[in-house]
Amino acid sequence: MKELTISLNTKSRVPLYEQIYRYLKTEIQRRQIPAGECLPSSRSLAAYLQVSRSTVDMAYLQLVSEGYIESVPCRGYFVCELEGMLQIPQARPAVPEEKTESDKEYAWDFAVNGIDEKGFPYNQWKKITREVQKEGPSLFELGNPQGEAGLRSVLASYLHHARGVSCSPEQIVVGAGNDYLLMLLRVILGDGRRIAMENPTYKSAYLCFCHLGYQVQGIAMDEYGMQMDELERSGADTAYVMPSHQFPMGNVMPLKRRMQLLSWAAGEENRYILEDDYDSEFRYRGKPIPALQGYDRKERVIYLGTFSKSVAPSIRISYMVLPQSLMKSYEERGRDFSVTVSKADQKIIEMFIREGHYERHLNRMRALYKSKHDLLLSLLKQMTDICQVSGENAGLHVVLRFVNGLTEKEAIIRAENAGVRVYGISEYDTSGLEGEKSDRVILGYASMSEKQMEEGMRRLQEIWRQ
Amino acid sequence: MKELTISLNTKSRVPLYEQIYRYLKTEIQRRQIPAGECLPSSRSLAAYLQVSRSTVDMAYLQLVSEGYIESVPCRGYFVCELEGMLQIPQARPAVPEEKTESDKEYAWDFAVNGIDEKGFPYNQWKKITREVQKEGPSLFELGNPQGEAGLRSVLASYLHHARGVSCSPEQIVVGAGNDYLLMLLRVILGDGRRIAMENPTYKSAYLCFCHLGYQVQGIAMDEYGMQMDELERSGADTAYVMPSHQFPMGNVMPLKRRMQLLSWAAGEENRYILEDDYDSEFRYRGKPIPALQGYDRKERVIYLGTFSKSVAPSIRISYMVLPQSLMKSYEERGRDFSVTVSKADQKIIEMFIREGHYERHLNRMRALYKSKHDLLLSLLKQMTDICQVSGENAGLHVVLRFVNGLTEKEAIIRAENAGVRVYGISEYDTSGLEGEKSDRVILGYASMSEKQMEEGMRRLQEIWRQ
Repeated sequence: MKELTISLNTKSRVPLYEQIYRYLKTEIQRRQIPAGECLPSSRSLAAYLQVSRSTVDMAYLQLVSEGYIESVPCRGYFVCELEGMLQIPQARPAVPEEKTESDKEYAWDFAVNGIDEKGFPYNQWKKITREVQKEGPSLFELGNPQGEAGLRSVLASYLHHARGVSCSPEQIVVGAGNDYLLMLLRVILGDGRRIAMENPTYKSAYLCFCHLGYQVQGIAMDEYGMQMDELERSGADTAYVMPSHQFPMGNVMPLKRRMQLLSWAAGEENRYILEDDYDSEFRYRGKPIPALQGYDRKERVIYLGTFSKSVAPSIRISYMVLPQSLMKSYEERGRDFSVTVSKADQKIIEMFIREGHYERHLNRMRALYKSKHDLLLSLLKQMTDICQVSGENAGLHVVLRFVNGLTEKEAIIRAENAGVRVYGISEYDTSGLEGEKSDRVILGYASMSEKQMEEGMRRLQEIWRQ
Repeated sequence: MKELTISLNTKSRVPLYEQIYRYLKTEIQRRQIPAGECLPSSRSLAAYLQVSRSTVDMAYLQLVSEGYIESVPCRGYFVCELEGMLQIPQARPAVPEEKTESDKEYAWDFAVNGIDEKGFPYNQWKKITREVQKEGPSLFELGNPQGEAGLRSVLASYLHHARGVSCSPEQIVVGAGNDYLLMLLRVILGDGRRIAMENPTYKSAYLCFCHLGYQVQGIAMDEYGMQMDELERSGADTAYVMPSHQFPMGNVMPLKRRMQLLSWAAGEENRYILEDDYDSEFRYRGKPIPALQGYDRKERVIYLGTFSKSVAPSIRISYMVLPQSLMKSYEERGRDFSVTVSKADQKIIEMFIREGHYERHLNRMRALYKSKHDLLLSLLKQMTDICQVSGENAGLHVVLRFVNGLTEKEAIIRAENAGVRVYGISEYDTSGLEGEKSDRVILGYASMSEKQMEEGMRRLQEIWRQ
């Protein structure tokens, strides 16, 4: 091949070298110039097209770097053999994502994962955000995989005072949500764990454990929490518990059961307790109960905390406290995973805690939620012929057990027809309990206004009384 | 037991019920009141202490909920049997975390993971942040596990235009960093994968794969990238590659090798290619080469992208494009893991892209980095007796190969003595290459000023010439 007749448009906004490049690329893709063919030298093509030699050089260089042609020293440029198709198809048109049944909107939704968004100190938060952003460049460097030392330090102090958790900042690992921390824990704890969970339990953690390849076993509960004899028999080596306020049942684990759990964990090498303290900030009667972690003398408790309930589910900041016994494993395997929370977000929450805003926010929210909690309980007092309440006095939800023969399924359907959404306990059951067999539902009250709650309960009372 | 002599201080700020609670708790912990003992009725204790009955009731209730005492119907309150120790120890004093050797500061650091922070449009970013924060409450709800639809939609369009990636927003999963996405991929792809990686390679991904329990095999490279025959022989079912600009070697994979890789992947069921397109935004000669994903007809390529290089390492936003063939597995197993990037951060980056700031930022940065790149190459031209350059024309680093007999180890030591930090290729080698045997180092130039670069190179020239 000596000549390539390329019609160049000198008035085009497309540079000449790119016109040459595009022409040759298309010709090669269409096999108009076959593999193995030698292209004209850049000098001769430049002369032929009446362009500068560097223009042709640039086009050739691009074709070489994309692999369409190759340069053979002292011989010239040759068209490469190409396998497969080359043409880039159009991007697929975006299919609008469908709303699923569970996204349906209810006028009265006793959602269990909501918070009261109006209680959030937006202005304070914005002010801190602006302050943090003033820091400029240093905020943009990749941070410590465990989380920033400043945040871990205020967390250690907060956890000690508010939750009786005994730890140094070096034991804290910050991560973007509990699910992520469970992934990281799998790396730290290794394969083949057998997890015992209370039944019913927090379904999201249950699913995460399953997807991470762990064997998961539901353990029946009595009023104090996980039944110890069943735990012993299960052969599990890791117990996932929520002692402050079990989800969904709302039980508070008494000290005695906590001590039994710790004894169980100490009973064999390599046993651990995962303490999920997800909503312990909210307790309306008496003082908060110290975390299980605070009583652990044998380095067996992994403590999990989150800002999902106390600040907002969307901010994606959780943390765990590793026992000293797992620090080596974290150093060896976990530390290679980069941190999942941005430095700016870590700094914001650190200042929010350090300057006392968090404590004030919690106090305000506790009062707000207590008022909703008390209202709900007073409304439920008119329904003692319909249901019994449990799991109250803490957290952001209560459990109702029907005493009038209503099943969970029937209760949910009737509620739905009246525009009210309540949640079945069977959703959280891991042993295959069906809604027809269950007699319990959960009502979350965090995201409802008192007015909504009153009307919602009025409707429930009407349709549930049979 | 009929009487408990508790000295109450009515002037204290500690409520009376809490004084009673504290006293009893301490007595029980110290075994001054033994297990099984019956406490006085609340009525009689109230009368004895001259406080209201509800004060004693509250104290008892708290002790019950913490498990120190239990209520036996019709009989009264009994002290529980407690296993183990109870006292909460003081939080351990924080040990200041030591700076490791690698944190040592150098006046001239050719860091390979840096960016030019001064190029960042802070004011624009702050303005968008303020805009986003105005949205208020809706920002605080937990979002889609895949990432917000709005962000995925602008990403799909950006990836199509800028990188030739062919996907719909439904195939995109947003996550807090590549390491997190590799964790999630492990859930999607399942156990027992055998990963082939170019050798040398991006060590962080290598370590993550190892820690996730995968078998990882280094595959030697020729100038085009991973050697195909070695890949075939390796028995691997997943190939992790960086076709746009291999890290650390800087090779650009030509089209022919890309096609061979795609053929390899199509050759057996369940083979995948992980395309890490980490710094493809920066290319200084010719047009960007479309991503491997764009040529994939068999649904075998998983595309990984990040804002770590193009915005900042600390913002923790990455994304992957799953082939349709993996969507079912994502739906079944991956979707149960909550999103790891906050809604606010997703919204900020979405607006940054949508309003054209990202493109302008990339253009500015490309010009800035090209100028540094060109300066570095011109300085290196004076050192042809010392070393050869490769991996130039793209990305944010180049590779030097010593031609004067200098080893990597010796070069690094001499540089260190002159206050300059350069990085050895052996750090990224997965076959045990030692610094004494290696003749290559890497120089990153993103975070250095041109003035620093000039002085740094002057020093290197002086000490490396032997």
